Amino acid sequence: MTVDLTLLPDGGTSWLDASGPENNIVLSTRIRLARNLQGRPFTVRASQAELLSVLDDVCAAARETPVLRDGVLYRIDELESFDRVLLHERHLISKELGGLGNPNADPRIGAALLTNGALGVMINEEDHLRLQTLESGFALESAFPAIERLDTDLGARLAVAFHPEFGYLTACPTNAGTGLRASVLIHLPGLVLTKEIGKVLQGLSQIGLTFRGLYGEGSEVIGNFFQLSNQTTLGKSEEALVDHLSQMVSQVLEYEQQAREILLREAPTVIEDKVWRAYGRLRYARILSFEETMNLSSGVRLGVGLNLISEVSVYTLNKLLIFTQPAHLAHRHGRPLSDSERRTERARYVRDLLEADANRMAR
Amino acid sequence: MTVDLTLLPDGGTSWLDASGPENNIVLSTRIRLARNLQGRPFTVRASQAELLSVLDDVCAAARETPVLRDGVLYRIDELESFDRVLLHERHLISKELGGLGNPNADPRIGAALLTNGALGVMINEEDHLRLQTLESGFALESAFPAIERLDTDLGARLAVAFHPEFGYLTACPTNAGTGLRASVLIHLPGLVLTKEIGKVLQGLSQIGLTFRGLYGEGSEVIGNFFQLSNQTTLGKSEEALVDHLSQMVSQVLEYEQQAREILLREAPTVIEDKVWRAYGRLRYARILSFEETMNLSSGVRLGVGLNLISEVSVYTLNKLLIFTQPAHLAHRHGRPLSDSERRTERARYVRDLLEADANRMAR
Repeated sequence: MTVDLTLLPDGGTSWLDASGPENNIVLSTRIRLARNLQGRPFTVRASQAELLSVLDDVCAAARETPVLRDGVLYRIDELESFDRVLLHERHLISKELGGLGNPNADPRIGAALLTNGALGVMINEEDHLRLQTLESGFALESAFPAIERLDTDLGARLAVAFHPEFGYLTACPTNAGTGLRASVLIHLPGLVLTKEIGKVLQGLSQIGLTFRGLYGEGSEVIGNFFQLSNQTTLGKSEEALVDHLSQMVSQVLEYEQQAREILLREAPTVIEDKVWRAYGRLRYARILSFEETMNLSSGVRLGVGLNLISEVSVYTLNKLLIFTQPAHLAHRHGRPLSDSERRTERARYVRDLLEADANRMAR
Repeated sequence: MTVDLTLLPDGGTSWLDASGPENNIVLSTRIRLARNLQGRPFTVRASQAELLSVLDDVCAAARETPVLRDGVLYRIDELESFDRVLLHERHLISKELGGLGNPNADPRIGAALLTNGALGVMINEEDHLRLQTLESGFALESAFPAIERLDTDLGARLAVAFHPEFGYLTACPTNAGTGLRASVLIHLPGLVLTKEIGKVLQGLSQIGLTFRGLYGEGSEVIGNFFQLSNQTTLGKSEEALVDHLSQMVSQVLEYEQQAREILLREAPTVIEDKVWRAYGRLRYARILSFEETMNLSSGVRLGVGLNLISEVSVYTLNKLLIFTQPAHLAHRHGRPLSDSERRTERARYVRDLLEADANRMAR
């Protein structure tokens, strides 16, 4: 089985289209709910037969759930490692579900059932079900009802493990209660350049929020992208958790705006020079590592946000995040790439995209 | 008195036009002859009246010399410091004649008599007369007869200090004999990148050649530009000195070509990346120091020489050498510039020039 992303109405990338609120600074909003089936062992302790039975039950329920009925099912354990990496790079499955933590181990029997707007279910990830949605921009207000409806619809057709005192039971106790993690992928170059970022992140951790890099837990911060999310899942309602995150992200957004105003006021030419040089390197380099690509496009993104650069769209910059990754470059090229080929192909892709944008904007 | 460079038929910049032989690698060829008037004290020991008398005599002779008759006379001691810097930046007068070594001292009474193709005479520099010519590319073959004719024509009208044994007498004994210094401004990024340059320069010094930076004696090497010239002036004929330099420069040119071939063969993508990144920075930077401008345009010049970059002409790169200097930027701007203004104006000038070239090439 090979993964065919064209089966998804939008290739699973509609969240990249920069259509959401505050899309200059907030790339995307993700909410996931962890759920487990009643009376079944958690996935780490389940036999092959038990995993298959969970998968069958969830698929049966999904077929009766309007929003999932036309979804595409990817059987992760039947995919080649390359295709699992591809899905992960596209933020459609987790590292855990893809079995990508340990390259020698096969992924457990599981699947991703995906639909438009990256709304879907991961089956037999750490929990039996991980309901997820991914939207463009700062979109907690629309993402939350979407995931809630999916939870209700699916919950009506599946017996889910729920404890009157602890709430939803999960494989890892840190997820118990609501099983909800909401996160916002936010670009904070202003706070990084003004060196305020440490203070802001420290403040967030004191009020129950946490931050991660581009790819969730354990991933490094590159390109000044931070995933801000709720730390606790227990003792508050879903609404309260999402409201709290929403308020705090609004606050961070405001800090970032202030930092940018300070930069523009105190060192306008230095900032202009910085963002345009980043553009020049990205536009003309013939060798690019992923990390350099992210760091340079962070500079360009800041330039676009400050209305200093109009030659490139936020949508294009968003695409760079996904399509300059190793599996995506190999996919586009039609064959595996060596390290050095990958760096030149990445530079070629970036160049073509930026040139097309510049030509379009010039018209 | 203000300097008006438009009086010169070509603004004194025809040597920049990249029309000469090997202009991809050799920027320009300069020959100068040092001469002194018989029975007069050298300029460092001369009184004001004696300097003025030398100036008058040379001007009278020049008026009768066909090639100088339509030349433009700049009285250096009557110019503001700014204008003297401007002439020096354009390579039309020496630091010595401009009195630019010590900003508190006025220049001695002297002048530059200039004509097309930077052929002319500096009067009361270190020597009473410095006949000079500056041509595009590797042009010893045409520059030498030009300066010889000027020497003959002027020598027929002025009694010049000449000793049957020592030859032409000069203020500094290192110039005695022929009084000739021929130099070639050559761009050697290939030898620098392959780290062969040290060996080559050492070899040259062992056979009577010397090297300097862009602005002659004591100036630093920037942008991989080297001025190669004869070290000795005594004990050989003018022809022999020029022939020797010519052969050695041809040899260096060949080494440089070989180094470039090695680079292209062994690391084509690395070189391509390097030259295009230099182009990107030069094209988009908003702040540029002169040194960075020279170093980046050295990369771009290499790219043009290797046929990797066609968006920019050698002529444009040559212009950057002259017109991005402080006095030229202030001249263009119509007023003195602060350090930071100068860096932003330089970046603006470079950007406009490269953009115009790219648009022209795209048509």
